[in-house]
Amino acid sequence: MPTETPALKDVPIGLTASGSRTEFDSMGQVEVPADRYWGAQTQRSLQHFSIGDDRMPKAVYRAYGVVKKACALVNHAAGRLPDWKMAAILRAADEAIRGELDDHFPLFVWQTGSGTQSNMNVNEVLSNRAIQLLGGELGSQKPVGPNDDVNMGQSSNDTFPTAMHIAAVDAIDGMLVPQLTKLVETIERKADGWMDVVKIGRTHLEDAVPLTVGQEWHGWAGQLRDAIAQVEASRAGLYQLAVGGTAVGTGLNAPKGFSQDVAAEIARLTGKPFVTAPNKFAAQGSLDAMVRAHGALRNLAVALMKIANDMRWLASGPRCGLAELVLPSNEPGSSIMPGKVNPTQCEAMVMICIQVMGNDTAVAFAGSQGNFELNAMRPVIIDNFLHSARILADGCGKFREYSVEGTELNREKIQQYVDGSVMLVTALSPVIGYQNAAHIAEDAIARNLTLKQAALASGKVDEALFDKTVRPIDMVGSGLAGA
Amino acid sequence: MPTETPALKDVPIGLTASGSRTEFDSMGQVEVPADRYWGAQTQRSLQHFSIGDDRMPKAVYRAYGVVKKACALVNHAAGRLPDWKMAAILRAADEAIRGELDDHFPLFVWQTGSGTQSNMNVNEVLSNRAIQLLGGELGSQKPVGPNDDVNMGQSSNDTFPTAMHIAAVDAIDGMLVPQLTKLVETIERKADGWMDVVKIGRTHLEDAVPLTVGQEWHGWAGQLRDAIAQVEASRAGLYQLAVGGTAVGTGLNAPKGFSQDVAAEIARLTGKPFVTAPNKFAAQGSLDAMVRAHGALRNLAVALMKIANDMRWLASGPRCGLAELVLPSNEPGSSIMPGKVNPTQCEAMVMICIQVMGNDTAVAFAGSQGNFELNAMRPVIIDNFLHSARILADGCGKFREYSVEGTELNREKIQQYVDGSVMLVTALSPVIGYQNAAHIAEDAIARNLTLKQAALASGKVDEALFDKTVRPIDMVGSGLAGA
Amino acid sequence: MPTETPALKDVPIGLTASGSRTEFDSMGQVEVPADRYWGAQTQRSLQHFSIGDDRMPKAVYRAYGVVKKACALVNHAAGRLPDWKMAAILRAADEAIRGELDDHFPLFVWQTGSGTQSNMNVNEVLSNRAIQLLGGELGSQKPVGPNDDVNMGQSSNDTFPTAMHIAAVDAIDGMLVPQLTKLVETIERKADGWMDVVKIGRTHLEDAVPLTVGQEWHGWAGQLRDAIAQVEASRAGLYQLAVGGTAVGTGLNAPKGFSQDVAAEIARLTGKPFVTAPNKFAAQGSLDAMVRAHGALRNLAVALMKIANDMRWLASGPRCGLAELVLPSNEPGSSIMPGKVNPTQCEAMVMICIQVMGNDTAVAFAGSQGNFELNAMRPVIIDNFLHSARILADGCGKFREYSVEGTELNREKIQQYVDGSVMLVTALSPVIGYQNAAHIAEDAIARNLTLKQAALASGKVDEALFDKTVRPIDMVGSGLAGA
Amino acid sequence: MPTETPALKDVPIGLTASGSRTEFDSMGQVEVPADRYWGAQTQRSLQHFSIGDDRMPKAVYRAYGVVKKACALVNHAAGRLPDWKMAAILRAADEAIRGELDDHFPLFVWQTGSGTQSNMNVNEVLSNRAIQLLGGELGSQKPVGPNDDVNMGQSSNDTFPTAMHIAAVDAIDGMLVPQLTKLVETIERKADGWMDVVKIGRTHLEDAVPLTVGQEWHGWAGQLRDAIAQVEASRAGLYQLAVGGTAVGTGLNAPKGFSQDVAAEIARLTGKPFVTAPNKFAAQGSLDAMVRAHGALRNLAVALMKIANDMRWLASGPRCGLAELVLPSNEPGSSIMPGKVNPTQCEAMVMICIQVMGNDTAVAFAGSQGNFELNAMRPVIIDNFLHSARILADGCGKFREYSVEGTELNREKIQQYVDGSVMLVTALSPVIGYQNAAHIAEDAIARNLTLKQAALASGKVDEALFDKTVRPIDMVGSGLAGA
Repeated sequence: MPTETPALKDVPIGLTASGSRTEFDSMGQVEVPADRYWGAQTQRSLQHFSIGDDRMPKAVYRAYGVVKKACALVNHAAGRLPDWKMAAILRAADEAIRGELDDHFPLFVWQTGSGTQSNMNVNEVLSNRAIQLLGGELGSQKPVGPNDDVNMGQSSNDTFPTAMHIAAVDAIDGMLVPQLTKLVETIERKADGWMDVVKIGRTHLEDAVPLTVGQEWHGWAGQLRDAIAQVEASRAGLYQLAVGGTAVGTGLNAPKGFSQDVAAEIARLTGKPFVTAPNKFAAQGSLDAMVRAHGALRNLAVALMKIANDMRWLASGPRCGLAELVLPSNEPGSSIMPGKVNPTQCEAMVMICIQVMGNDTAVAFAGSQGNFELNAMRPVIIDNFLHSARILADGCGKFREYSVEGTELNREKIQQYVDGSVMLVTALSPVIGYQNAAHIAEDAIARNLTLKQAALASGKVDEALFDKTVRPIDMVGSGLAGA
Repeated sequence: MPTETPALKDVPIGLTASGSRTEFDSMGQVEVPADRYWGAQTQRSLQHFSIGDDRMPKAVYRAYGVVKKACALVNHAAGRLPDWKMAAILRAADEAIRGELDDHFPLFVWQTGSGTQSNMNVNEVLSNRAIQLLGGELGSQKPVGPNDDVNMGQSSNDTFPTAMHIAAVDAIDGMLVPQLTKLVETIERKADGWMDVVKIGRTHLEDAVPLTVGQEWHGWAGQLRDAIAQVEASRAGLYQLAVGGTAVGTGLNAPKGFSQDVAAEIARLTGKPFVTAPNKFAAQGSLDAMVRAHGALRNLAVALMKIANDMRWLASGPRCGLAELVLPSNEPGSSIMPGKVNPTQCEAMVMICIQVMGNDTAVAFAGSQGNFELNAMRPVIIDNFLHSARILADGCGKFREYSVEGTELNREKIQQYVDGSVMLVTALSPVIGYQNAAHIAEDAIARNLTLKQAALASGKVDEALFDKTVRPIDMVGSGLAGA
Repeated sequence: MPTETPALKDVPIGLTASGSRTEFDSMGQVEVPADRYWGAQTQRSLQHFSIGDDRMPKAVYRAYGVVKKACALVNHAAGRLPDWKMAAILRAADEAIRGELDDHFPLFVWQTGSGTQSNMNVNEVLSNRAIQLLGGELGSQKPVGPNDDVNMGQSSNDTFPTAMHIAAVDAIDGMLVPQLTKLVETIERKADGWMDVVKIGRTHLEDAVPLTVGQEWHGWAGQLRDAIAQVEASRAGLYQLAVGGTAVGTGLNAPKGFSQDVAAEIARLTGKPFVTAPNKFAAQGSLDAMVRAHGALRNLAVALMKIANDMRWLASGPRCGLAELVLPSNEPGSSIMPGKVNPTQCEAMVMICIQVMGNDTAVAFAGSQGNFELNAMRPVIIDNFLHSARILADGCGKFREYSVEGTELNREKIQQYVDGSVMLVTALSPVIGYQNAAHIAEDAIARNLTLKQAALASGKVDEALFDKTVRPIDMVGSGLAGA
Repeated sequence: MPTETPALKDVPIGLTASGSRTEFDSMGQVEVPADRYWGAQTQRSLQHFSIGDDRMPKAVYRAYGVVKKACALVNHAAGRLPDWKMAAILRAADEAIRGELDDHFPLFVWQTGSGTQSNMNVNEVLSNRAIQLLGGELGSQKPVGPNDDVNMGQSSNDTFPTAMHIAAVDAIDGMLVPQLTKLVETIERKADGWMDVVKIGRTHLEDAVPLTVGQEWHGWAGQLRDAIAQVEASRAGLYQLAVGGTAVGTGLNAPKGFSQDVAAEIARLTGKPFVTAPNKFAAQGSLDAMVRAHGALRNLAVALMKIANDMRWLASGPRCGLAELVLPSNEPGSSIMPGKVNPTQCEAMVMICIQVMGNDTAVAFAGSQGNFELNAMRPVIIDNFLHSARILADGCGKFREYSVEGTELNREKIQQYVDGSVMLVTALSPVIGYQNAAHIAEDAIARNLTLKQAALASGKVDEALFDKTVRPIDMVGSGLAGA
């Protein structure tokens, strides 16, 4: 180690060299592009794992920046890293956190199941960036080495799931919940405005007794509120961090207290209640907290799918469908049928929900495939999680902005259904009994009568009783909680 | 209605008539077996839906007994049912709750999606049983009618999900959690006994640094503890009951306060904190609480699968496998290979977990397919839920009793692995650096040396340093929380 | 072995003893119920694996009867079994094939993953039944032993998948394809009758250009025809049998030619083109043919779900839905809404399809979990396969008989939609251009005009041109193959 | 229309304008980037559907180029397009086919479920590119209009699934099957070289009787051969094209014979046996052929997962695992454990398989959600299909090149297992009976004897018989077909 303290230079991000640079790892030397910070192991991974177009999400690297920063701070506080090393690593880590080094994190999702190659990518990039800042020679691993310094006290086995958790919480808090909240608030606002609009209910797709449009919309909102609550609750598992377990959960090569100190530092840096996982063997041998969190996204998709389907069915038509709702016309719907408008936002949402449910199958399957001290299915899990969270968040945003906000009622049609339905006969049931009421309804349908005609024809009801009893507005109760 | 109060007779359960009896519903008359209590609608369902061998689980009917009892009590308290009707319905409902009427609930899972046919089955059986108790004529629907009395203030749309929730909570509390708790306690007890047995860790299936057997087993226990906690937490949604929403959530034909009163009565009868669902439109239009609860079972399966897989791999052998664990020999393993013993309990558990994950796909899919005021996928969801809960509970019981309890360590083999592994080199890494340590390990493997031989040959370490540093017992940390 | 030939006695099936009988296997003695033919290993399995209600399907044992019979015939022909042993085994096997021994096959699905316990159950039952027929002592394993005689030249590892394949082909040919064929023929017959009934098409749930009811129904039939073809094609893999591979695929302890001879015998006994699998290591190490066959069921479910959904949506109403179809009224639809009729057969079919898709997740997952020379996930796969085939077959039968057969058209409503739709404007597009046509459609909807009113108002079309061009009957083409 | 023929100019691809350009559709004017060819509807979609990072795969657009070219040729041949229009459209379509217009196809997967927006994107880009080539004004839709000319005789409803099929077949033939074939050939080549290397078999993870390494590897190859065959067979459904059905399957606005002519043209252009779908209502109302094709990919994943898992387990170690195989060391395996090498290619393959199985859930679910004349879940299906095909193809390539090719045997370890196993006792079973053999094996394990020691100790076998009978090389049979 150098005896005099190297000075941290304010060198901007970037490498102007062209051609290649020689890097090394324990297996030997590797040529890497001279304008990239990464080292030998990143290059090896690029060679061996260029599979498809799926890159490890940048959000993982940004979260990893937080991990590396927190570890450097704790290693420094414990006297294991000198001031100047810490300062260089911190500067580089901050750049990673801000996404400024994204171009230097090129690896694919389909790589080692532990995420080691992405951890080494971070280690190598921060190492070389720190070396650059300290005036050293790139690829020399001096004075800041990828393994011994940037990865000090760490393993991929504990830091990769830590970065997964940070990235997942960030996706939930930063993207998903805000968009969900806006969506549910919009639905509730519209529902409140329509609490008095009586409409026909439908069960089994068949005409049923009435409710109000506002009640129906609040039903959707209620589903979403519950789904949001579960997504938020799923963070409890994500707040528990594996860092400090190192290779197999025992914490080998990490100093005593490292787990708690790094978790506390991460909590401070992120402003979120991260803590150290009480059981590192569970935290590294499984990915159960991630499976659980994705399960919450899956359940959200289940709810959203029902809502989007209801909306597009209620908007079906304009002349040959249910036609209770009028969705905004955002674009021509057909390349051949002029003037056609389709519920495209609903369709996009349904497809998103289906994708999330497929992703959930993958996540749960992967979660079940751990062995011994490691679940080596991490990349596929974090990639699916962030994918699901992203398309749900964006999809909810577009769905709200371009479909829900502008939805209007076709009040004429809604009233027409209420007037025509024979299921209003249900109100007569407590008065004349279920069987008599049933025969009236059957007669109305068979002879194409109005309910009133059939009721009077039955001789079981007179007009005064009918008019007093069969009043849709009296049949919708009040509020959301039923009788 | 009769003006004088019919007396409740103490008639034992059973109908001695043979041949058939005529029952009726609004569509007309139907012949039913004379020795069964059910009526016309049950018989119609039997005719139209005899599909496969899947019968609606009896647990649903027992839960329905609770619903009917609670409703009768509340209807009576509200003055809507006279004492004697209530008494007759209660007696019949209690018999249903105790399973004494199970033979009279024959319907199939594959029926109407609302569960109406099973609700009517209950209504018809309780009606006829009450009629019998009151000395009336079976099939007359007098003096206790299936729709007007037993189903008073109710709809299948609100009572069937209510019965689903009660049955699901009962499966969780009565079967699943007790078995899970016993299993995790057994694992923890064994783990505690082996906290000092150092063994080699494995990551990526490859030799890694050591931990103790106890730590590894506590890793499994930690997974299970979290899974149990989520299963228990999932009851929160199940505690919310739809009853009182009647046909579409508005509570039509139910008296004011019915929702709360019936929920309170159900809570009293079951001793569990059931409450009325605050949003009946969400409670009837979706089955999200059930989807969420099954999601918790799915996540439990993910954890159990990892545990069962670890156990069978660690017990593989006896001579050509890992052979660290010795599972109990419960039965001959092969019809052709004499003396073979297999990890059959682990295999059964893995298959159970796979089934639960398949069931979960079905449940989530069904959950997404609601329309408007009803999710008409109820039978498939409750059947899968109770199936999953049952096989998980029973499977955990057998797995514990016949595999985990009797598992022993092969201490000789465990020690042999620790002695032979070169990954102990990791302890040298902080002393001589990662790269030097790597070259020692590579050399040991390439030349088939012991780690010590290779380390000394490297010239980077002397014997004293090696012996001081590479001590497995010092590499396992302490407890479960890592460094 | 006996030197003189024991005589085969014509003893009817059944054991009149009560209490228990002592049986043994290599691990020692076990008490079994005296009125059952099974032996020690079956009893051990009953004790260790009483998990849930899922029993190994009887169809597996009937198929196993065929396997045992074929093996006995081949062993006899090779001089390995004397006449009298063969005769006794054949008699017992024939009884198993006819289902007469079903009560003696009690084991659960959740058992050893190889199915060994069910194979031993068969071996033990046939052994004891043969002993009974030969006048020997039950439990003595003499003169016909379960392992050495009934299982001669066999292993569970090769015979269980053989029985799986036989049972699966039987389910396809005996249940599923006949029911599917009847269903598709019914749909086609009705479609043919409605080839001239013009109706409005719907895409994105929205009004589109017309087609005929017959074309729409033939679309469903086309889906089903393709699905049936794939189910039938999936038998190709099932026709390949593993028997003859014995323990690990090498055929150890089976005589040369056993594979081919037994497969030929099975083909002769069943009348189906079974052959020996050319690669026993694939046949025993994987269950890919089963996964593929269930995949075909899954794809069938995908098609059936679309059809059932279309039918129930088209029948929605009667006054507030699409109401183009009138489904048979099989039962009252609601316990609270009198006179309600619901598309219950469609709902049952949808739930069945969802279950099959969930089962498929389980089957594929299980299929992926083989290790080395055995995929030990067999019971869960065959149970799901037979479950799916059964509910699909039965469900198609009920769906056809009680829903499709009796479906009628609401011709008035159908015509009304055709008359009202503005999407007929599409026919004007080639004449006046897409943009002009679009503006006419938009105007019609915005001002609530008929298409003709809007078209004439646009000044782009005169009445003669409109009447000549916008003729629904001219817009439906002919037949099924488009333009 | 212009009376004189516009000349086709040889203008290179590209627009040098900056800022925006005004485009229009039936809904009005829209500003688009001036350097892009797309028009109003593409821009509307970009605004309304910027969801996540998932773009409609470029392969869809390239396939769409084929569709547009074929339609233009057929329209021209039918006298519906003049020479010069055809020529311009052809030139633009060829550019699309070669991928030269990829930058002009920016839309997202999550859009209208019919793919109309992507069809319009193609129509607009080819229209504007043709206009440019003909010296017209971009955005004028003259002289080549997106709807009336480029989309002539077409609808998104028939052309989008046509493009899906072309793209899917191309992925199968161009990427997937070639990579699979190379992989299976490599496995077979290595298997052939190891047909004589006797190794211990393992069933239930437990020691079993021997086979050869070559047999085991040929087992994997056999699975792959079957999987490839099914993937190839799945093309049969994909060869059937919907084009010619136009909006709802009737072929409205397409000239007679269009279906067959365009399919024939596509077959000619691609050199593949595409034909017109005989039932356009099935072809557009469902996506069953796509579901079936992805099902084949799923089944391939099931097989690949078993193979990759076997390989990594057999390579586990080096000192504490099975250690029969030595995989190539491509990269350092751990950031903390020096010298560690992991089966990373196997892990990547396992994760790919899991992703494909998740994608399959999404595809099947989406396939089930069609309604009436359209399955509006197309984008999610084609995106998942091409994703799965791509990662499988690339993954197989890397797996072969960097893992399978370089795999070596650890012959010492393999022999050691064969020598130590007690399951060789199976060969004694036909000689001394199953029960006697079992007791020998049990004794060997209990007393830690060699099999020979235990056998001789049993008194059932003498040395000569043992040595003659228990010969591993005689226990492996010959070839792959068993006995």
